Amino acid sequence: MSHLYAIILAGGSGTRLWPRSRQDHPKQFLDLVSERTMLQETYDRIVPLVPEENVFVITSWRYVDDVHAQLPYVPKAQIIGEPEGRGTAPPVALAALLLRERDPDAITFILPADHVIPNGELFRRALAAAAQTADQNFLVTLGITPAFPETGYGYIHAGEALGDANGMNVFRVRRFLEKPNLETAEKFVASGEHFWNSGIFIWRGDKILQEFSRHMPDTLKQMETLVQRGLDAPSFQQDWKGLPNETIDYGIMEKAEHVAMLPLDAGWNDVGSWAALYDLMARDDAGNAVQGNHIGVDTTASLIYSHKRLVATIGLENVIVVDTEDALLICAKDRAQDVKKIVDELKARNAKKYL
Amino acid sequence: MSHLYAIILAGGSGTRLWPRSRQDHPKQFLDLVSERTMLQETYDRIVPLVPEENVFVITSWRYVDDVHAQLPYVPKAQIIGEPEGRGTAPPVALAALLLRERDPDAITFILPADHVIPNGELFRRALAAAAQTADQNFLVTLGITPAFPETGYGYIHAGEALGDANGMNVFRVRRFLEKPNLETAEKFVASGEHFWNSGIFIWRGDKILQEFSRHMPDTLKQMETLVQRGLDAPSFQQDWKGLPNETIDYGIMEKAEHVAMLPLDAGWNDVGSWAALYDLMARDDAGNAVQGNHIGVDTTASLIYSHKRLVATIGLENVIVVDTEDALLICAKDRAQDVKKIVDELKARNAKKYL
Repeated sequence: MSHLYAIILAGGSGTRLWPRSRQDHPKQFLDLVSERTMLQETYDRIVPLVPEENVFVITSWRYVDDVHAQLPYVPKAQIIGEPEGRGTAPPVALAALLLRERDPDAITFILPADHVIPNGELFRRALAAAAQTADQNFLVTLGITPAFPETGYGYIHAGEALGDANGMNVFRVRRFLEKPNLETAEKFVASGEHFWNSGIFIWRGDKILQEFSRHMPDTLKQMETLVQRGLDAPSFQQDWKGLPNETIDYGIMEKAEHVAMLPLDAGWNDVGSWAALYDLMARDDAGNAVQGNHIGVDTTASLIYSHKRLVATIGLENVIVVDTEDALLICAKDRAQDVKKIVDELKARNAKKYL
Repeated sequence: MSHLYAIILAGGSGTRLWPRSRQDHPKQFLDLVSERTMLQETYDRIVPLVPEENVFVITSWRYVDDVHAQLPYVPKAQIIGEPEGRGTAPPVALAALLLRERDPDAITFILPADHVIPNGELFRRALAAAAQTADQNFLVTLGITPAFPETGYGYIHAGEALGDANGMNVFRVRRFLEKPNLETAEKFVASGEHFWNSGIFIWRGDKILQEFSRHMPDTLKQMETLVQRGLDAPSFQQDWKGLPNETIDYGIMEKAEHVAMLPLDAGWNDVGSWAALYDLMARDDAGNAVQGNHIGVDTTASLIYSHKRLVATIGLENVIVVDTEDALLICAKDRAQDVKKIVDELKARNAKKYL
């Protein structure tokens, strides 16, 4: 499998982990769960499977230096900075075009840089199985076995069994589904046929380029021009801004045939909120997940995340406390999604120092 | 009334306003309610009535320099440092002995340094009335008209009316009462005859010395020896430590005859907890009392007290947040009394830097 490549997508600028995530320092660059950052863990997870020299990172131009600092072994020419976010379809097309010359038999893993996957071994087994499936000209995705009826994720409805690869079941994908309401999500989970859309994709380079030429031909042409001119051409920034904003899910996956899914049950979590991080962290007898110096009196089921200050809590339940150098968040745990309202308010106040 | 003197008692080392109050910086030295500290406000409140040169402060030796820094107009010889806290009776006896030589007709106001009294004018009217009453050889105290059935204060049961002084009613004191349970406190408030024990006392110097010689003769003798030797004598510290630990309430007031009380309804608050401070502070439309930089989403009836950090809150009700340079408190408002449990835990951990 020397033709395996990893394209790590590290351009996100998520705000739901404010005040730790900031515009200049988004989630993927944070060491939230371990000593390593999420980007580094994404890299660590994949390199037992993919040769180091076959790892690419596509990020915002603002973060190129951060990526280089965190992943010094990735050649600088393989860290590509997007002038502006354009969804996942353009960077996927770009990666496929860059690899076309280098390795006509490339099989590519598209990997978001901001997910947590505790069981790395199972994850790599699934990726290896997906690579086998991809080599038979399928577009492959991993579907996460849903742990609960999450309404914040898209779902994949699995169809007929396609047999197994590397000892794992493979299914045809029936449909990609938008984020459901709670009632629908509960039905999805009960059905056993629905999986969380992980945003992880696996395909041959020539296969995905075929799909682009079928479903997003204009984007593909624009990207070919851009690559011919070179990523260091003066026109690059302008050309990039002319690309459409489109996800690979909507632009290609939902329209393509021969789409397969491998179920994965490896503790996946996209850490989309402080409440999600709480679910990931080890907890003490009172159900508190604590990082930092904490004294709790009658404090239960809470997340305490302190930069360096002592945090003392009394009579709290299901509360999130995140302390940083210049800002402090205290949030009811079931309101963790509303952290974006704080960020919106900071934007409205033009309080750049906190963004 | 040129014989009026103020003895400000500023030796407290209260912990219930942790993390702002610390052993080295207790409540009376904090600017909790205004730009001025509670000690300074105590001074400001009294000097329209008492000549500046007649103000004394009795504090712990640890705080003598702090008192001098905050009240530079008080002569340094009139700032007296106790080697150890001995309750309120010993400093009252000391003050009376020091004044005996200076002014045989002294009328003394004993004033705790850590109370808030919003209506200073009414307070001074009551003190002037109390001074008139004291001049007729009564031991006088102010009884605070209770705003609610507080169980954390002692109460005074008022007896027969003694007429009026300075246009204010004066009552004989029937009894001093310990902190009641809630049921009893409710009865007290309903009776209209019970008042909060303010810890503010007014008497002639010769009268209180008579009472000491009757009810605490040993303490008075010890204190006379101590004063004869001089406060700067090498034996001072040792002599002081030999004094009993006694409050003026229990040692004298409860036993004395001719004890009078003036009711005061001037917004008195002893700021005995963060919840008490919340009651004192101005509030916004959501019922939040905020000092510092705060963004609240669905946050109501809470106290946000920030040193300099931005505090963002989501989905909180009746919560106290106090942020300082090195420590952060988050506390359910009805658990504000339990801040002392945090302090106890810090003591158990020998975490001196936070005490």
